[in-house]
Amino acid sequence: MKLYPEQFQQAIETIASLPGIGKKGAEKLALALYSWPESKLKHFASLIDSMQHDLHNCAQCGFFSQKDALCPICSDPKRLNHQICVVEQVSQLPVIEKSGSFKGLYHVLHGKLSPMSGIGPDDINIDSLLQRCKENHVSEVILATSTDIEGQATASFIAKLLNEHGINTTRIAQGIPIGADLNYADAASIAMAINSRREL
Amino acid sequence: MKLYPEQFQQAIETIASLPGIGKKGAEKLALALYSWPESKLKHFASLIDSMQHDLHNCAQCGFFSQKDALCPICSDPKRLNHQICVVEQVSQLPVIEKSGSFKGLYHVLHGKLSPMSGIGPDDINIDSLLQRCKENHVSEVILATSTDIEGQATASFIAKLLNEHGINTTRIAQGIPIGADLNYADAASIAMAINSRREL
Ligand SMILES: [Zn+2]
Ligand SMILES: [Zn+2]
Repeated sequence: MKLYPEQFQQAIETIASLPGIGKKGAEKLALALYSWPESKLKHFASLIDSMQHDLHNCAQCGFFSQKDALCPICSDPKRLNHQICVVEQVSQLPVIEKSGSFKGLYHVLHGKLSPMSGIGPDDINIDSLLQRCKENHVSEVILATSTDIEGQATASFIAKLLNEHGINTTRIAQGIPIGADLNYADAASIAMAINSRREL
Repeated sequence: MKLYPEQFQQAIETIASLPGIGKKGAEKLALALYSWPESKLKHFASLIDSMQHDLHNCAQCGFFSQKDALCPICSDPKRLNHQICVVEQVSQLPVIEKSGSFKGLYHVLHGKLSPMSGIGPDDINIDSLLQRCKENHVSEVILATSTDIEGQATASFIAKLLNEHGINTTRIAQGIPIGADLNYADAASIAMAINSRREL
C-alpha cells in the first residue's frame, strides 16, 4: 500500500537522489520539512528555486561571487597571485580551500574534456586560463582535475598547451585514489596531494 | 573569510537545521543541489513550496490524503475498525505502520496538550476522536503519544475522557525510552511497545 500522496512521494524520491541520503533518510527529511513553519519552508523553497540564478561566477576564476564582483578569493590581496589551481567544478574549490594547503588563486573549468559527450577544449574555460597566465605572469599552474580518465586527459591537454607558452604546470599527485571524485576526498588527502604535486 | 555568497550560505544553514545533518553535510548537499539540472532543481523547489498546501488531511483520521478523499489506511476495508491508535503527529503514523504490529485505524491529534504553550484540549483533535469512538463502536483506543511529560499528560487526559464514555484505552508501554521522540524509534521497539501495551 502506498502510504503517501503522489507529490510527497516524489519529494521523498528527489531527496533520496542526493548523495549520501538513502530512502529511509529521505522520508525522515521530507517529514521534517513538512513539519517546518510555513514561512521557513517557503523561504527554503525560494532559496532552492533561485540558487542557480542568484549565484554569479567570478569574472576572473569562475567561482561563486556576488553579482558584478570578484569572488572572496580573487578579492583577497593576501593570496599568492603567481599560483593558480585548476579545478573542474565550483564544488571542488571549497574542498581544496579547506585543506589549508593552497594560498594561491583558482581557476574553475566548469567541466572537463569528454569526447564521448562532445565536450571539447572550447566548451570549458581553458582559453581564459591561458589568458590569465599570460597577463599575470603566473609561475605555476596546479592541475587539480579529477583522477578519472577524463580528468587526466583534461590535465594533460592543459599542461601541453601551457607548456607550449612557457608556463610551468604541476599535477596533484598522491593521496587521491585513482578514479575518485574530488568532492568526496578528505582534507588530509587533499593536503597530501597538493604538497606532493609533481611537474607534468 | 566567507567563501559563499549570502544566499547560498543561508541555504546551507537551512539544510543544516534538518535532523541528522551537520554543517559539513549541509554544505555537500547544497553543492549537490547546485549541480542538479535546472529543471530538476526547479521542480524540487516547487514540490517543497507546495508541500504543506498539496497535502490534505484525511477527514476521518487526520493523516495525509489526496484532496477530498480518505487516506489509504481509512480506505482499506481490511483494517480493523474497532481499534484506533492515537498519535500526535502525521510523521509518527508511518513509524508505527512500518513496525507491522498494528492493523487498526489511526487518529492524528495534530499536537499534544501543553499548558506552557497555551495548547488545551480544544486545540487538538480530541473531540473528533470521541465522536469517532462513539459512532463506530470502537473497542480499544491505543494511546501512542510521546513519552515526554506533555505526551504522558495528553494520554492521561484522553484516557480519562474516553473511560468516562465507557471506551477502553491502552497505552503503548515497553520499548520506548522515557523522554524519547517517537519519530526516531526503531521498528522493533515500536513493535514491542505496541504488543506490550497496557490499560490506562
Ligand atoms: Zn575569483
Ligand atoms: Zn484516514
